[in-house]
Amino acid sequence: MKERAVVLLSGGLDSALCLAIAKINNYECYALTFDYGQRHKAEIEAAKNIAKQQDVVEHKIVPLDLSFLSDSALINHDMDLPTEDAPQIPVTYVPGRNVLFLSYALAWADTLKATNIYIGVNALDRAGYPDCRSEFIEAFRDTIDVATKTTTQGKKIRLQTPLIDKSKAQIIKIASAFNIDFANCVSCYSAETVGTACGECDSCRLRQEGFAETELKDKIRYER
Amino acid sequence: MKERAVVLLSGGLDSALCLAIAKINNYECYALTFDYGQRHKAEIEAAKNIAKQQDVVEHKIVPLDLSFLSDSALINHDMDLPTEDAPQIPVTYVPGRNVLFLSYALAWADTLKATNIYIGVNALDRAGYPDCRSEFIEAFRDTIDVATKTTTQGKKIRLQTPLIDKSKAQIIKIASAFNIDFANCVSCYSAETVGTACGECDSCRLRQEGFAETELKDKIRYER
Repeated sequence: MKERAVVLLSGGLDSALCLAIAKINNYECYALTFDYGQRHKAEIEAAKNIAKQQDVVEHKIVPLDLSFLSDSALINHDMDLPTEDAPQIPVTYVPGRNVLFLSYALAWADTLKATNIYIGVNALDRAGYPDCRSEFIEAFRDTIDVATKTTTQGKKIRLQTPLIDKSKAQIIKIASAFNIDFANCVSCYSAETVGTACGECDSCRLRQEGFAETELKDKIRYER
Repeated sequence: MKERAVVLLSGGLDSALCLAIAKINNYECYALTFDYGQRHKAEIEAAKNIAKQQDVVEHKIVPLDLSFLSDSALINHDMDLPTEDAPQIPVTYVPGRNVLFLSYALAWADTLKATNIYIGVNALDRAGYPDCRSEFIEAFRDTIDVATKTTTQGKKIRLQTPLIDKSKAQIIKIASAFNIDFANCVSCYSAETVGTACGECDSCRLRQEGFAETELKDKIRYER
């Protein structure tokens, strides 16, 4: 039997590449996406397409009520999105987001007897978000080891972060080599449909800077 | 300003006592309950009553879709409940439950700038459930330290487990001293209303054994 992997799939570039990497490692892949009231609903559509294109065994879209965490600009639609370099921790920080996402992934991995969890944290995220840094990943790995039936009965669930040291430009180059469909990867914080983007928000800017460092062409239609 | 505490409140005895302990420590208390499709829905009613009796600042009941974790008898209503001493890990084990509950508590604590999280894990739970053991609690404490805005900016969120070494009988005695209303604390895995219990399931049995070791009388009406 093939080993299984749970892949956190946001609908963005990084997690689309993570899924491709899990597949090339010959894991049977289970994709997990959250509908947490994010502004960029198009993400979820993109995740569905990516899961289909990459032929996962199962794709779960889990509704997540984070309305009580009204502090974040990604959830609270009354807050302005950042358009320039953020302070230490940007307003798009969602309290506890990755610990929640990883907890769900862990619960599912334990149920499926999956031996791997993939998350697309990377060098760019790490700068701003505490729950994307390697200290956090390491601590969560230690938690996994003692948290579940699988892991306390001698089996390992590995938390895989293949992009943790990669820049956006590097991710774009590798994704291109893996034939990831850029037009279908949503980065924009206010994307309304898959394939379009505001071209103004932080996330658009970082994507555009990433592409500018490569010879590659983005397939997204930017409004500005 | 008073320090704040997020208290995981299941509607059972242990968490009702945890809340009383958080209050006596003079924290401003925020109670958090999950509606995760558990058999014992009466738990949620009990949690509401407890939150009201103990006058919390806010009580959140968060819907949690754990339907994809169909492995547990607490979620999958087609599975039989255990009625005698369980094997190493009982079928009532819900994969990743406490890591999920604690992740939500952490997200909320980070939002509220709360300095404490209370969870009612105890000696009895520890025997069967990996995510109730002190190894798990310690690992999650380390995760908290590096997971959030609050904790990576030099403030501590303490994970409090005041009952971790306590037996059911000890918990009952302390709860009595705190005037916890036993009739309003649901333990039974198949309780349909607050104040009644099957008297047959594992959880009823452990509660009855606990009371038997004390001079105290339970206020629950047992069907058997």
